[in-house]
Amino acid sequence: MEGSKVNPAGAKSNTKFYLDDLHQGQKFVSGTHLIDADQIKAFARQFDPQPFHLDEVAAKATLFCGLAASGWHTAAITMRLLVETGLPLAGGVIGAGGEISWPNPCRPGDILTVHSEIEEIVPSRSRADRGIARVRSETRNQHDQVVQILLARLIVPRRSAPARA
Amino acid sequence: MEGSKVNPAGAKSNTKFYLDDLHQGQKFVSGTHLIDADQIKAFARQFDPQPFHLDEVAAKATLFCGLAASGWHTAAITMRLLVETGLPLAGGVIGAGGEISWPNPCRPGDILTVHSEIEEIVPSRSRADRGIARVRSETRNQHDQVVQILLARLIVPRRSAPARA
Repeated sequence: MEGSKVNPAGAKSNTKFYLDDLHQGQKFVSGTHLIDADQIKAFARQFDPQPFHLDEVAAKATLFCGLAASGWHTAAITMRLLVETGLPLAGGVIGAGGEISWPNPCRPGDILTVHSEIEEIVPSRSRADRGIARVRSETRNQHDQVVQILLARLIVPRRSAPARA
Repeated sequence: MEGSKVNPAGAKSNTKFYLDDLHQGQKFVSGTHLIDADQIKAFARQFDPQPFHLDEVAAKATLFCGLAASGWHTAAITMRLLVETGLPLAGGVIGAGGEISWPNPCRPGDILTVHSEIEEIVPSRSRADRGIARVRSETRNQHDQVVQILLARLIVPRRSAPARA
């Protein structure tokens, strides 16, 4: 991905975390992604063709007061950062669902980093081999402004399945 | 967008709905989008590079038991359908946030349609020119299986601003 690079905090690692390795309050930081106007417009043409995502001049007269990334574009970039460096989970980053919000617009030139924190671990009652991790992921720009908050329910495998009762 | 077409229920219309025109229980249906393996892999390469979204053979050994679209891809296609035919709102489809879940995987060959229902109208207390519409949007495949549920808070302009108290 153009503009994507790994910072020390989000360095790629071979360590993969199982549900048993996670604990409440545990934090992870991703690498970074530089978003520019071309990326914003290309995503918008394909998935969210509205003036505030397509054209700088037209965007000025809208609620956004200038070009801004589609929220779904921010979500997609966030996923890329989580998958590659931000959340080294065994089995990958598999979301069952969650809550999403965009407190501030994401602008051309923003350098995005994802800060994640484990909020809760919920072993599955029906499946001994997995559980749910509730994870809060804040996507922040270079000014530390939060452009997206994702509260996700992720499916995470267990390191060793306990014997069934 | 390849594979995107408008069905009678989701025909493009010049009618744009303001907050004042919406009511609880009101329903909208989008046009359709045919998703295929090439689209699924192309999105995954850019935003969600995990085996269950990239490769049919590798995907079989995963939780998904076969190639499936990234949830964020389903969200992006849903947005395209909402913007073009599914939710003809004055001011466009502008989300403040919401809840999202993926009850069933979205597979190559799925023909997606978005069924939306207005759940609540909340005029803004601080801004007389707008309000929030809470909208439930189900993205369904050709078998009427729900591949995504989005409960969105959308910012919708009012037709005429009432006088301030």
